[in-house]
Amino acid sequence: MTKPPAQIGDPIQDILTPALVVDLDSFEANLRKMASFASEAGIRLRPHAKTHKSADIALMQIAQGAVGVCCQKLSEAEALVAGGVPDVMISNQVVGIARLTRLAELAGKARLVVCVDDASATEALSAACQAVGSQIDVVVEIDVGQNRCGVAPGAPALELGRLVARLPNLRFAGVQAYHGSAQHYRSFAARRKAIDAVTEKTRSTVNLLAANGLACEVVGGAGTGTYAFEGTGGVYSEIQPGSYLFMDADYGRNLSEDGGAYAPFQNSLFVLATIMSKTQAGQAVSDAGHKSYALDSGMPLVRGCSDLEMVSCSDEHGVIRDPEDLLSLEDRVWLIPGHCDPTVNLHDWFVGVRGDRVETLWPVTARGCLV
Amino acid sequence: MTKPPAQIGDPIQDILTPALVVDLDSFEANLRKMASFASEAGIRLRPHAKTHKSADIALMQIAQGAVGVCCQKLSEAEALVAGGVPDVMISNQVVGIARLTRLAELAGKARLVVCVDDASATEALSAACQAVGSQIDVVVEIDVGQNRCGVAPGAPALELGRLVARLPNLRFAGVQAYHGSAQHYRSFAARRKAIDAVTEKTRSTVNLLAANGLACEVVGGAGTGTYAFEGTGGVYSEIQPGSYLFMDADYGRNLSEDGGAYAPFQNSLFVLATIMSKTQAGQAVSDAGHKSYALDSGMPLVRGCSDLEMVSCSDEHGVIRDPEDLLSLEDRVWLIPGHCDPTVNLHDWFVGVRGDRVETLWPVTARGCLV
Repeated sequence: MTKPPAQIGDPIQDILTPALVVDLDSFEANLRKMASFASEAGIRLRPHAKTHKSADIALMQIAQGAVGVCCQKLSEAEALVAGGVPDVMISNQVVGIARLTRLAELAGKARLVVCVDDASATEALSAACQAVGSQIDVVVEIDVGQNRCGVAPGAPALELGRLVARLPNLRFAGVQAYHGSAQHYRSFAARRKAIDAVTEKTRSTVNLLAANGLACEVVGGAGTGTYAFEGTGGVYSEIQPGSYLFMDADYGRNLSEDGGAYAPFQNSLFVLATIMSKTQAGQAVSDAGHKSYALDSGMPLVRGCSDLEMVSCSDEHGVIRDPEDLLSLEDRVWLIPGHCDPTVNLHDWFVGVRGDRVETLWPVTARGCLV
Repeated sequence: MTKPPAQIGDPIQDILTPALVVDLDSFEANLRKMASFASEAGIRLRPHAKTHKSADIALMQIAQGAVGVCCQKLSEAEALVAGGVPDVMISNQVVGIARLTRLAELAGKARLVVCVDDASATEALSAACQAVGSQIDVVVEIDVGQNRCGVAPGAPALELGRLVARLPNLRFAGVQAYHGSAQHYRSFAARRKAIDAVTEKTRSTVNLLAANGLACEVVGGAGTGTYAFEGTGGVYSEIQPGSYLFMDADYGRNLSEDGGAYAPFQNSLFVLATIMSKTQAGQAVSDAGHKSYALDSGMPLVRGCSDLEMVSCSDEHGVIRDPEDLLSLEDRVWLIPGHCDPTVNLHDWFVGVRGDRVETLWPVTARGCLV
């Protein structure tokens, strides 16, 4: 783990760059706003920790009413449980005897939920839990339009649910029904239409399971782009948004119902960068390249100045178009990453700032937890 | 730092995935081939450690004749020196008093070379070295076509070189003249033409400096796509390729002089992945998403099977088109990353394999060293 790029109490201008900086006022407003939504809608909130990978932040979410968190990988779940998180859903499949054994062991230490979409893998999970002597909650993932993992809604989900209910050391907990790409459909109407279809597939599956004696305590899914639909549709029992804490440039391109920017939450996450070279008119070069922010959803934006645009980047450099030559050597720029989740994964520390000071440092507990 | 995804002696099929795997036979062949080239061409080899970020690998390169290594960041240099590397060039600018002080301190522990492209930053470097009592070698970076950092060739380089030579605790060591984007020009002729122009700008600058009493011990640059040009052109004194050790899908798209694939080196670096979901005909889903490989140079390729193509990915999933349904749950696929350097930076461990066994584990010493 690298050294933190700042110390608590440092003035912001002393943070070494590139650094992953959280504006705590905005962050806390986001944290509260989603908690309030869930509370008012009467729906359980299980935020997705794949975004922040932080036990500290997970515990803050739980302190504000979340029932637990989600993550994507076994090793993330291990890191979160080791950090004191008592209730974790791996919203993903886990395969292979070595991983299943670790998962079964972890299920003895915290409440664990995991997804399945295959009969033989479910049998292997049951065997691993029997060998270890633990019990695990299992949800059947249904493919509601993402075309990735999950069995088809309806009869295939019932068949797998029955297997889960029958196998030793597994507890049938419900279904997982997440449509990731719908989060980023730009128009409000397209997102609503997609989630209407998702909700119908989920409803009919939940009803089929119930009619066959399998009650779904967990009906999980939803993300930052669509949580209000699943959260109020009467079918889901828990919503699993992650990005709402931080937001990013890509969510900033979503539109709201009135056609304006979709901005229910504030940008609270930035890559702070320093101008390290300024030898040409019209551009400046920052010390933050794509080893400090992810590019899967496009280039970072420069906060607060429409004249400045990052036009290219390489591993350790970001070239900023600066037609008015506003930037000088050692100036700071605050970059809004294209996609928050994989950007966080490039850093070891969140530097939390308020006013002009560093107020907190949180380790990225599960950074690099790929297994 | 995460746990290694395997133990030495493990069979390959027991490596937990996603894992960063090095085929040691190919790796060693690449290591030897570049060392032989440099030896035969009579040019110093200073491989770029931004690719591997590993003190172990840097020391292997030095054992085979390299004069030292390059890196891009101060904190990378600190990690490499702490790992025993005796001679490091930061082929980049370092700005700000806090970083310059650390750099000056590091220059007391190993031979350090750093680039400058600004007079005031050079004065600050000199002041930092005076304060600490260390001496540092300085090269003037010239912009030979990358349009990023560096002063213009010719008179501006002379002016900055004179400043370096005049300032206390700095030793003028020469020039850095690297054209990064030319490495990836697809046609051999385009790469040669670009480097011919680069070499001419460098030659005239070196001559101008020499005519003014400033001898360039270091004339540095070149990468895996063009090293043979700089290495034999009579102007450069050292070449700084990095990717040759591993290669990647992007270098695989370069062409050689005869129009075939540019393949002076072998692919030795892979992201090993496991099929974790197989619920639809025609595709399979692996457990390796873009938190385990960089996307800046496109999607990974699936080694050894032209029928399999990764068609989409998200943070933790890679969807592989599999028209013949060749893949089953728990099958392994070997992915060739689009770009080796930022892919390595996503992992904590290299898993070195030979035959059917894990032979070695190298930590990615400077992973996440952004500052």
